[in-house]
Amino acid sequence: MLSPIDLANDGGEAWVWIQIKAEARRDAETEPALASYLDPNLRSATVADLIAARYRDPACVSFSHCLLNYKGFLACQAHRVAHKLWTESRMPLALALQSRISDVFAVDIHPAAEIGKGILFDHATGVVVGETAVIGNNVSILHHVTLGGTGKAGGDRHPKIGDGVLIGAGATILGNVKIGKGAKIGAGSVVLIDVPPKTTVVGNPARLVGGKDQPRRHDEVPGESMDHTSFISEWSDYVI
Amino acid sequence: MLSPIDLANDGGEAWVWIQIKAEARRDAETEPALASYLDPNLRSATVADLIAARYRDPACVSFSHCLLNYKGFLACQAHRVAHKLWTESRMPLALALQSRISDVFAVDIHPAAEIGKGILFDHATGVVVGETAVIGNNVSILHHVTLGGTGKAGGDRHPKIGDGVLIGAGATILGNVKIGKGAKIGAGSVVLIDVPPKTTVVGNPARLVGGKDQPRRHDEVPGESMDHTSFISEWSDYVI
Amino acid sequence: MLSPIDLANDGGEAWVWIQIKAEARRDAETEPALASYLDPNLRSATVADLIAARYRDPACVSFSHCLLNYKGFLACQAHRVAHKLWTESRMPLALALQSRISDVFAVDIHPAAEIGKGILFDHATGVVVGETAVIGNNVSILHHVTLGGTGKAGGDRHPKIGDGVLIGAGATILGNVKIGKGAKIGAGSVVLIDVPPKTTVVGNPARLVGGKDQPRRHDEVPGESMDHTSFISEWSDYVI
Amino acid sequence: MLSPIDLANDGGEAWVWIQIKAEARRDAETEPALASYLDPNLRSATVADLIAARYRDPACVSFSHCLLNYKGFLACQAHRVAHKLWTESRMPLALALQSRISDVFAVDIHPAAEIGKGILFDHATGVVVGETAVIGNNVSILHHVTLGGTGKAGGDRHPKIGDGVLIGAGATILGNVKIGKGAKIGAGSVVLIDVPPKTTVVGNPARLVGGKDQPRRHDEVPGESMDHTSFISEWSDYVI
Amino acid sequence: MLSPIDLANDGGEAWVWIQIKAEARRDAETEPALASYLDPNLRSATVADLIAARYRDPACVSFSHCLLNYKGFLACQAHRVAHKLWTESRMPLALALQSRISDVFAVDIHPAAEIGKGILFDHATGVVVGETAVIGNNVSILHHVTLGGTGKAGGDRHPKIGDGVLIGAGATILGNVKIGKGAKIGAGSVVLIDVPPKTTVVGNPARLVGGKDQPRRHDEVPGESMDHTSFISEWSDYVI
Amino acid sequence: MLSPIDLANDGGEAWVWIQIKAEARRDAETEPALASYLDPNLRSATVADLIAARYRDPACVSFSHCLLNYKGFLACQAHRVAHKLWTESRMPLALALQSRISDVFAVDIHPAAEIGKGILFDHATGVVVGETAVIGNNVSILHHVTLGGTGKAGGDRHPKIGDGVLIGAGATILGNVKIGKGAKIGAGSVVLIDVPPKTTVVGNPARLVGGKDQPRRHDEVPGESMDHTSFISEWSDYVI
Repeated sequence: MLSPIDLANDGGEAWVWIQIKAEARRDAETEPALASYLDPNLRSATVADLIAARYRDPACVSFSHCLLNYKGFLACQAHRVAHKLWTESRMPLALALQSRISDVFAVDIHPAAEIGKGILFDHATGVVVGETAVIGNNVSILHHVTLGGTGKAGGDRHPKIGDGVLIGAGATILGNVKIGKGAKIGAGSVVLIDVPPKTTVVGNPARLVGGKDQPRRHDEVPGESMDHTSFISEWSDYVI
Repeated sequence: MLSPIDLANDGGEAWVWIQIKAEARRDAETEPALASYLDPNLRSATVADLIAARYRDPACVSFSHCLLNYKGFLACQAHRVAHKLWTESRMPLALALQSRISDVFAVDIHPAAEIGKGILFDHATGVVVGETAVIGNNVSILHHVTLGGTGKAGGDRHPKIGDGVLIGAGATILGNVKIGKGAKIGAGSVVLIDVPPKTTVVGNPARLVGGKDQPRRHDEVPGESMDHTSFISEWSDYVI
Repeated sequence: MLSPIDLANDGGEAWVWIQIKAEARRDAETEPALASYLDPNLRSATVADLIAARYRDPACVSFSHCLLNYKGFLACQAHRVAHKLWTESRMPLALALQSRISDVFAVDIHPAAEIGKGILFDHATGVVVGETAVIGNNVSILHHVTLGGTGKAGGDRHPKIGDGVLIGAGATILGNVKIGKGAKIGAGSVVLIDVPPKTTVVGNPARLVGGKDQPRRHDEVPGESMDHTSFISEWSDYVI
Repeated sequence: MLSPIDLANDGGEAWVWIQIKAEARRDAETEPALASYLDPNLRSATVADLIAARYRDPACVSFSHCLLNYKGFLACQAHRVAHKLWTESRMPLALALQSRISDVFAVDIHPAAEIGKGILFDHATGVVVGETAVIGNNVSILHHVTLGGTGKAGGDRHPKIGDGVLIGAGATILGNVKIGKGAKIGAGSVVLIDVPPKTTVVGNPARLVGGKDQPRRHDEVPGESMDHTSFISEWSDYVI
Repeated sequence: MLSPIDLANDGGEAWVWIQIKAEARRDAETEPALASYLDPNLRSATVADLIAARYRDPACVSFSHCLLNYKGFLACQAHRVAHKLWTESRMPLALALQSRISDVFAVDIHPAAEIGKGILFDHATGVVVGETAVIGNNVSILHHVTLGGTGKAGGDRHPKIGDGVLIGAGATILGNVKIGKGAKIGAGSVVLIDVPPKTTVVGNPARLVGGKDQPRRHDEVPGESMDHTSFISEWSDYVI
Repeated sequence: MLSPIDLANDGGEAWVWIQIKAEARRDAETEPALASYLDPNLRSATVADLIAARYRDPACVSFSHCLLNYKGFLACQAHRVAHKLWTESRMPLALALQSRISDVFAVDIHPAAEIGKGILFDHATGVVVGETAVIGNNVSILHHVTLGGTGKAGGDRHPKIGDGVLIGAGATILGNVKIGKGAKIGAGSVVLIDVPPKTTVVGNPARLVGGKDQPRRHDEVPGESMDHTSFISEWSDYVI
């Protein structure tokens, strides 16, 4: 058997690394506060978020840059832990964690909010997501976006965001409204009513591009394509 | 007489707590920098703010949660101290405190701004309130709201917000305009002119709901009811 | 020759200060990480930014207040260092610095973005400036402004802001569009197309004040005059 | 019934404070991580520590000063929570908390160490207390004191400190030795063997004052009297 | 007259710097909390401390390095401000500042302690200076030095250190004892009685080098020469 | 080929991790400030330090605990980077890093000091290591240890510590003295002269155990065995 000193003289770097990983796993198994690191659902969500940032944000040059530096990514992972605490009825800790995330990242997501996988919070500053909001998979949300409530009554009062939705910078969606799969919410829009799947809304107050009766539909998945520009030509007739 | 050790053996918790409160009061009386803790106006404003958060924000589950965690509440209390310094002509300290509040909470309130009692800054990230702004009592202000100036001239150049007003997320109100008592400013609105009491404005640029000549008036106090939705039906005809 | 003790007894304050400045210069000359402090371009840009804040923001009562407290000023100077690292192909450090600036100031400027001299970031919270954005000289940008990209393709995809432009609070400018010299972008505007020089756009979606065919032109330099109000009369006909 | 607004107008400060205390108790009852705040043993220990600081340290002018500012007091209370985690077999959290206390206060107490009530850590910087150390009640420990182990074997290897002991600044006690009740350990002493009750040791290596066979005994409780000087006359014969 | 923009184009760096200095002076004159920056006594003490560090510590390569990095220098200057608050009877602020200095630098100096000019706190970690301690001019104090009290009675109970004294690392001086001008206190000494001027004490308990009756006297000023070694030969006969 | 989305759906965790490691390596290769992460000497020293902590400190229950929490380990690794900067003549950065390490960990190691592999800084608070100190391999150093200089002259003036030495808590070694291989320095010792290999010194001033002429020699390697107690019996005759 190798002695510790032999290992040290030989380097032993690989062996130490193996020990560290085994210890971390053991700690996570025995300490409830660390258990989320072993939750396969959380792990796969984190991986999907990393891939989302890497492939949707052209300024994201590497996974490691995202892992170290992206406040949207980091705030989302911290929310996933806060949400787990919330579902285990540990409200005081969950709320304290929300508050800390809000102070550090200026991203305010209620711990009860449900968030899917493959989420990109791009830039992220100023994002607010309310208590009964639900966000599907492969959604991209720019900075200053609000998924807010309406009124001071409790109950189900925040938006439901379908899979593949793209929400532009500064958009405000209020109330228990349904944003259909693959919809696109233009930057700065204020949205208070349901938006059909695969359609686009723009403006404040928001208008459905193409009109209420025959809205234009797109085939792409905007949450993945990140195409904020397709509606420029549609606007150009009457905007400037 | 009880000796300290007897007290310690008996617990003595209540007695120690009484001493601590008496000491804190004595310190506050002798040290000018702590005097604001004894100012009855500041104290009642703080209590009113706590009650406002607790009863208007359905996600606020307890006073203690607000006291510990709500950055809007904490930033507002810190502003009240900065404002007191400002009124005592201690501008450098007041401005340094404003800057610190802005760094920590991303809430930027000029120390000269006058703020009433029972104020709810909900979520609070990104709020900007200018030097000559005045905010009445029982006002609710969502995140990303700007009460801004116009131009580089000094003088009275920021909004005056009446009692009971509700200002939705991301609204921008610019210039020395008067927002009447009980008015409601829709999320994302850009407002540059006076708004009559008990009326609602929405959109960018903002429109008076019901029209300039016969604006619809509501009876509620929106700053207390927090009802962001009443105008949805009014919008639905022409928005989407 | 004076001994150190003589100097200490005499005060020697001026002499020590001279030594400190000489040492700082010597350190900056030999240590690459400090070299930017000697770059004449960076120094003159910093001075111009200070003067911009002092003369355009009526709440800015002194240079020293700005130097110590203005997060917009401090974030801009930190960006200038990050940008220098970027141009020297030290991307990991530049991106890490961007991330740190975003965490501390809630101002997110890609290190590749080119920023001129005499820039005022007023209030600054929530500003986002993308990778291929270019900002000219004597520009004033309020808080919550986005100079964003469109889509997930790389390449030149962010706005180009001409000299003397004023961008109001919460405005969102997306894509590789050109904002002409001296243009004025109203608060809360969402702009996706080029804006001619010396004209004004307002609203979401943005409209050219005066209309596409005969836009009204102003003579002032809005980035310097900071006049957000000139278009109120123009709005008043149809807004409220 | 009073409405919230009535309360706000009336002040309602007392009523809000009652709510806050009730909420804090409820949170502490339901959230395991907060449970230590309700543990009567921890509470009475904290009270006894406050009283110890107030009455033994002549520079401690008030309980509130101690509660807010004394790093020895704060580090000790944090240790009490870490120790509770340790006894519940939550080692990773307990060790992480120890490390955090060491970084913040430069006080390094292993979470397994058992500490009695009425403890004064005066100045506190640099205190090190090992894993199997036991500290009785009414003990006073100055800064830079080490209760250390000997060797790299595990097992019971740290000092056991009796009730009422006083340990002077910079004293080092090593190994599983017993410091008898009411003993006094001179500043800077290095102690490796048992010390009888009510005796004094000084020097490096430590000598028993009065000699091994007829050590001088005192009647006071040095941990409470804080008398570091009684042995000066004893030293004066042979020291200087 | 030059316009601001001309200045910006011309650089204007020198002019801006002059304004900044004038503003800082004006702020310091009007704001009591900043007044110490103008106190000529504080300023000359700070300069003397800088010179002391530069010329006595061979590892101190520049004034600027000391000004930016030396925790002993920074803690001492912060103490000077705390001491000024104390002399103005603003005890709560002074004590809070002491506590903050202790947390940040691990240097714990009671705000009532009087400290002369030209002081070098070398390395500084763990220094403790009590309430009634007095330190003369041109004194050098190494890390882990304690100037402590004895007992729990108030009153004058801490050491008085004469001009030009050198106190070695880890020395502990307890009680209202007088350390004569130019004395040298060996590292790790524990001193409880007066030390005559220009003599040396070493050991724990401390012995006067040369003996009580004919102590050896040196001519140098050890606080300035920093000579820790002169007594090695004196020790070598009987030490190892 | 797998698409990113497929990977995300499949988990793709292993693949992402491979990318992250490759990116980190690429960044470290191109960015000079990160190059030390690839230096094989630094890596093997770090591994040896980890193994030293794990096997010599009975309170160290895992490598991961050490890696995350041990301030001695972390301060030593940070020093290794500062030392590399120093050897590359980047003094200002190296000194700034030293200062930061001293503030955060209360461990003050001059960046010029040379430190071998397999070093344990146990507890670590208050350690001071001077500019020209040299520490061999497999050395264990407890808290509050000083390897200090003597006098204000520059040049080679700090201790040289041989392989396998153990230095007890609070020991102070001053001057350019040589501590032989495998020597043991008792806690609280003050050492000013060379110590022969495999011998023990204790006390202040330090005495060679067994006497100058026939010092007792041990066979163990104290830096690895961590045996602080072997000399108790030797002391017991004359100490207490």
